[in-house]
Amino acid sequence: MDFLRSITSKKALEIILGFPCTPDIEIVGIDDALNRVLAEDIISEEDIPPFSRSLVDGFAVKAKDTYGAKETNPRFVNIKGEVKIGETTQLEVEDGECVRVSTGSMIPRGADGVVMQEYARYLLDSIEITRVIHKGENICFIGDDFKKGDKILEKGKRLGYFDLGVLASIGISNIKVYKRPLVGIISTGDEIVGIDESPKPGQIRDINRYTLAGLFKREGFIVIHSGIARDNPEDILNKIKLIDDADIMLLSGGSSKGERDYIMESIKELGGEIFFHGINIKPGKPTIFARLGDKPLFGLPGHPGSCIMVAIRFVLPLLKLLEGEKIQGHGKSIFSGILTANVPSSVGVEECVDVTVERGKEGIFVTPLFAKSSVISSFTKASGYIIVPEEKEGYEKGEVVEVYTF
Amino acid sequence: MDFLRSITSKKALEIILGFPCTPDIEIVGIDDALNRVLAEDIISEEDIPPFSRSLVDGFAVKAKDTYGAKETNPRFVNIKGEVKIGETTQLEVEDGECVRVSTGSMIPRGADGVVMQEYARYLLDSIEITRVIHKGENICFIGDDFKKGDKILEKGKRLGYFDLGVLASIGISNIKVYKRPLVGIISTGDEIVGIDESPKPGQIRDINRYTLAGLFKREGFIVIHSGIARDNPEDILNKIKLIDDADIMLLSGGSSKGERDYIMESIKELGGEIFFHGINIKPGKPTIFARLGDKPLFGLPGHPGSCIMVAIRFVLPLLKLLEGEKIQGHGKSIFSGILTANVPSSVGVEECVDVTVERGKEGIFVTPLFAKSSVISSFTKASGYIIVPEEKEGYEKGEVVEVYTF
Repeated sequence: MDFLRSITSKKALEIILGFPCTPDIEIVGIDDALNRVLAEDIISEEDIPPFSRSLVDGFAVKAKDTYGAKETNPRFVNIKGEVKIGETTQLEVEDGECVRVSTGSMIPRGADGVVMQEYARYLLDSIEITRVIHKGENICFIGDDFKKGDKILEKGKRLGYFDLGVLASIGISNIKVYKRPLVGIISTGDEIVGIDESPKPGQIRDINRYTLAGLFKREGFIVIHSGIARDNPEDILNKIKLIDDADIMLLSGGSSKGERDYIMESIKELGGEIFFHGINIKPGKPTIFARLGDKPLFGLPGHPGSCIMVAIRFVLPLLKLLEGEKIQGHGKSIFSGILTANVPSSVGVEECVDVTVERGKEGIFVTPLFAKSSVISSFTKASGYIIVPEEKEGYEKGEVVEVYTF
Repeated sequence: MDFLRSITSKKALEIILGFPCTPDIEIVGIDDALNRVLAEDIISEEDIPPFSRSLVDGFAVKAKDTYGAKETNPRFVNIKGEVKIGETTQLEVEDGECVRVSTGSMIPRGADGVVMQEYARYLLDSIEITRVIHKGENICFIGDDFKKGDKILEKGKRLGYFDLGVLASIGISNIKVYKRPLVGIISTGDEIVGIDESPKPGQIRDINRYTLAGLFKREGFIVIHSGIARDNPEDILNKIKLIDDADIMLLSGGSSKGERDYIMESIKELGGEIFFHGINIKPGKPTIFARLGDKPLFGLPGHPGSCIMVAIRFVLPLLKLLEGEKIQGHGKSIFSGILTANVPSSVGVEECVDVTVERGKEGIFVTPLFAKSSVISSFTKASGYIIVPEEKEGYEKGEVVEVYTF
């Protein structure tokens, strides 16, 4: 039985993430940089903000001139002038003086705080200040965001919307990023038909092509599809050749012994190397990982639930690596919750169970759905999954478990 | 002071989500349907799977013929034939008989369970079964996924990758979805320059254009930008007209009284209606919400931190509504954590504080960053934010708080 040779999920991930990756680099405009992975450290060549700015509408003063000020005992300072938004100024605030500023205005020299207009009453050419401010209050100082020479974003970071703001702030409109891997998907199986066909008795429609593509596209990868390969090495070979510009190859549909055999045969025929076949997990046991030339190849189980779970847990991390992403806290769940039912499992197999999550007054409640891996419908109701480790004989109702979101 | 007229965040959201929305419908192919919102209920016209299938490689039997079987006391059944993957069969399993099946094969009539090949030993034309199976074991029955007539996806649902699988399984390749709203962004401010320009003293680069666009694009919306409007009603009017095919208009940069005045003047001049200006939140107080013709318009604060927080909390929910999405549990956080530091706040203002989140042995720890809203850098370090309600004078270290992720 080839299943005897199956390895642990930890070992599998170790082998997968040990695959040698040398992503190519390209330059994209900032408008296309969302979700791309930085191929260089970003160092600021300027102080940001480049000048001290007012955070409010009001009056720039020396903070000490407000000490003791209150509604019933205001302090007075003379208005020396105004700094409008966007303009530079030569004004200097001296003792007993203030300069009118708007939100975003440059702070004139000498001032070290801004009194909000709500706490200032106009007299003729002076104001009454009715509240104390401390030194630095309502000012964003030069370099508060970044100082010249600061490393502000690190190579290997996937750019989120805040990162785009950071790049904009220092004027970087073209960004060196890693090329996104092209994911090639081949559906295999004599029983599989395209979704526009009417399945004859014994046949079913191709599901994995769409769940896999959706998962990868959501993460920003590009997906191509070869069409459906029949269960023979010749057709599998043809389909592999059809999409040989892909950076990674996924063959979905090797759940039966026969299908796995054809996939293994094809890999060998093309001079590939098989690293493992069989992971000690449920669902997802009949998973193959191999090398074809310098590209990784997965043989994924055919059951829709098994296929997507393996893609989430084992393919996605490799894709991120192929794109040069520095993964922090890989495989960590974000939160935990309390089980509302027993989750039986067998010792010796690591089991994934899809769950719904609900917030109650006493915490987060996690309800197992126990979907058959052949059934896709229950996954649409799930918000995530939990993992029962190999050495555990399930979890009991009331236990706290880590939740991984979809 | 116009701030006296500011309203609570709850009231603001109520007004915003009360905006009349009648999204248009279009048809997209399944390859383009990820993250789109369904404009119709999806009813299955078939049983899925359309026939009972084997979940394993093995032998289809009558379960009762395995009762009592164990390694030391196997039960025997005769092999009647085989059902290959993808083919139909006329075979019928009778008492004392079995039919060889592969994973995905049609289950022959009469069988109600499948013995995995690991628990069967071949004899000449029969097998020894070494383990009991229960009725239904290792079979995915006809209709297990959906029954004909089942409502399988609901109008208003945003399609995830599992949903694409469900649509594929019933052969739906063209899908009625709502048109995605076109988001128009106008950056305003005399101090703002484009990111390819060198800011003169007193000027800074446009940040909000990129953080806003990134946020909305990540959620699947389409964004257009008018360029930068100077702080006068005429230029603001021109820029609004430039992008008048947008379904929603966002003017970023009304943090100073002057800027807000110009925006309000422009809205009034175009015959618009202002619903509120000022929300009792920090950051984000100087927010304007209005109607221009039949389109919603936001005046967003200029500070990058304030701008993006208002976009996340107030603009995004409206965008989803404009796209016809049925939002479940809107504004709910997913998890809670323990504060590692005091979070001071003023009674009477609802305060958002960006935080980092770390999993420890004793739970999830939440550390406030206390970024100035004018500073974008600290947001790149944050994983989410917490909200201190209006009526609370802050949180204390050790308190459990809800976390909203970015």
